[in-house]
Amino acid sequence: MSSLFAERMGKTPRSFIRETLKVTECPDIISFAGGLPNPTVFPVRELAEVAKDVISDEGAAALQYATTEGYLPLREWVADRYAHRYGLSVSPDEILITHGSQQCLDLCGKVFIDKGTPVAIEEPGYLGAIQAFSLYEADFVPIKLEYDGPVIDDVRDSMEKKCRFFYGVPNSQNPSGVTWSETKRREVAGIIGSSDSMFIEDDAYGEIRFAGDIPTPVKKYIPDQVVMNGSFSKIITPGMRMGWVCAPKEVMTQLVTAKQATDLHSSILAQRIISRYLSEYPIDSYIRKITETYQKQCECMLNAIKKEFPDSVSYTIPDGGMFIWVTLPDGCSSLEVFNKALEKKIAVLPGIPFYTHGGGENTMRLNFSNSSFDQIEEGIRRLSEVLKTFTST
Amino acid sequence: MSSLFAERMGKTPRSFIRETLKVTECPDIISFAGGLPNPTVFPVRELAEVAKDVISDEGAAALQYATTEGYLPLREWVADRYAHRYGLSVSPDEILITHGSQQCLDLCGKVFIDKGTPVAIEEPGYLGAIQAFSLYEADFVPIKLEYDGPVIDDVRDSMEKKCRFFYGVPNSQNPSGVTWSETKRREVAGIIGSSDSMFIEDDAYGEIRFAGDIPTPVKKYIPDQVVMNGSFSKIITPGMRMGWVCAPKEVMTQLVTAKQATDLHSSILAQRIISRYLSEYPIDSYIRKITETYQKQCECMLNAIKKEFPDSVSYTIPDGGMFIWVTLPDGCSSLEVFNKALEKKIAVLPGIPFYTHGGGENTMRLNFSNSSFDQIEEGIRRLSEVLKTFTST
Repeated sequence: MSSLFAERMGKTPRSFIRETLKVTECPDIISFAGGLPNPTVFPVRELAEVAKDVISDEGAAALQYATTEGYLPLREWVADRYAHRYGLSVSPDEILITHGSQQCLDLCGKVFIDKGTPVAIEEPGYLGAIQAFSLYEADFVPIKLEYDGPVIDDVRDSMEKKCRFFYGVPNSQNPSGVTWSETKRREVAGIIGSSDSMFIEDDAYGEIRFAGDIPTPVKKYIPDQVVMNGSFSKIITPGMRMGWVCAPKEVMTQLVTAKQATDLHSSILAQRIISRYLSEYPIDSYIRKITETYQKQCECMLNAIKKEFPDSVSYTIPDGGMFIWVTLPDGCSSLEVFNKALEKKIAVLPGIPFYTHGGGENTMRLNFSNSSFDQIEEGIRRLSEVLKTFTST
Repeated sequence: MSSLFAERMGKTPRSFIRETLKVTECPDIISFAGGLPNPTVFPVRELAEVAKDVISDEGAAALQYATTEGYLPLREWVADRYAHRYGLSVSPDEILITHGSQQCLDLCGKVFIDKGTPVAIEEPGYLGAIQAFSLYEADFVPIKLEYDGPVIDDVRDSMEKKCRFFYGVPNSQNPSGVTWSETKRREVAGIIGSSDSMFIEDDAYGEIRFAGDIPTPVKKYIPDQVVMNGSFSKIITPGMRMGWVCAPKEVMTQLVTAKQATDLHSSILAQRIISRYLSEYPIDSYIRKITETYQKQCECMLNAIKKEFPDSVSYTIPDGGMFIWVTLPDGCSSLEVFNKALEKKIAVLPGIPFYTHGGGENTMRLNFSNSSFDQIEEGIRRLSEVLKTFTST
């Protein structure tokens, strides 16, 4: 039967994360391996009321087939948000509601990638994007990520290699936690702006920012060459799978065609629930609550790391998002750390799957948003014991 | 910028249906062009209560990220339903919950179709499938549809052409309303069973059956070579975009990988709402209500057609589903009928987009599920006036 399967299936990594999560699902394991938002801050009571009201008041309109582009008031909310937060001027016509921001990546794969098309991606890069673009048989061109963003020479090289787009996560990147500096944003915009390529600006974590000014989106500099996506997963809840993509009109026409062939439209019930929630409750104070919660969890983990980790282990200090990226000394294997840590009931995520061309054996990702302070402190203490056995040899 | 777009985008028809629906959205138009379920039978009150209860009672679990395969109780319901209705023995592990049954087609495209892969499809065929498979650059092999199912010689030829699968809708097909005879189901199963190919059995309309025995799924004969999909859109409501795909385990592994890269998982909130609705309310009596409603609408339209249409116009007599297929005399153009009918505020759907290799100029699809008796009678009367001007010349 395997001869029936498309070639692309052999090129797509089954999610290491997914397989890992299965191992780490035991309730007695402290897991820093996943990437779940903190469910203790979900607006459960509010959403229960809103869901009932939407169906009761809006009736069949909330349950019938709907337009591919999405619910207009929700697209208007996104456009307003972009205007106020980022100073971006986009029309609701440039916004399409998707089933999570992951679906934006699938749609971009459909619209931009032929078999063997070169596409640039941060290294380490977001695994969901690697999976999505692999399904369209992209030829990945890695762009090394430093503590302040991508290596600019790599970006320039990727454009010379005729990459059709560069996909990056400038705000609190998954997996690294890195936020691009303002300088690098300008430089990347300059390079892409003088090419025929696009930038796909994944902004899933843009609202989850602990401190500092709001960074300038690359889209602000080169609006006609940027496809930007966003997510309600991190600012409301992820289970409804609601996100959006914002693209120049010529690209949007293609994205809508692709979306329609993929699943007709995004759940109109979920769109109306989120739209009504946004109109009835103060989202800014809710986002502040999430952000403060994550910031405290992040500080707790950073303090524990500072106290416990061997000096030879380095790590990022995120200004937002959900992840800390850890680099072990050269020659240390995070896969071995993973296995040893599991024996101590601690789960981490080895960094290898975030690399499209090998490497990253000595890296790992730690999630801080889904553990209590006690779990974080105890988990980092046990993880440090494992790390010490590796770094002392 | 168009040089950036993938080749597939040039091969994918923008939905004629979608464009047509835009023209026909004026409230004073009687539209038989769409394919909407009848919203007057949506269980609005019940779903409002269930939605609230799911969120209140199940809390964060209904709002957090979830597994790619889907909510187990819902997959168990599908497996049970298949056992009782069709005598199929499938495990919940062979079921994946999708964002509508349209997503099953996208996932099958991902899993089975390389550029130029030959795939067989009924002619006329479901437009959503033509769009989905076009995005994977399939090479369509049409299989002519007769009043009792596919032309068997065409099926045999398609296997000789090494089609990787045959996609069909054996129950109350969209667009034709045709249900395959038992004989043809056995014959198709025999031909596919002695090949290395698969059958993709789209069963979106299987539950909407007006009369007669429950037909035998092709999957009953060759379970290991059939991917079967189903939909909650026609038996509950479509707006939540909930469907499923049932596949042999080896295929399911690939489908799950594809689903994860596409949108991680289907809305867990929608899955839990539907699962709870199915456990708290008697779905059989609800489906009976839908079926009786559609049957009456169908009979109303058939009676009006019999009374009004010129004798030279033929049409199918569906035993379920939502559509009647109309064939005009050779040389009559349904596109011209469409334009003339619009002047009389009647919308029909010309049949051309349902053909992958041209043809069908004298065919059109009529939807009966979304119009009142008065609208159906008045609409068919006005449409007949148009038809008479064509058939008399």
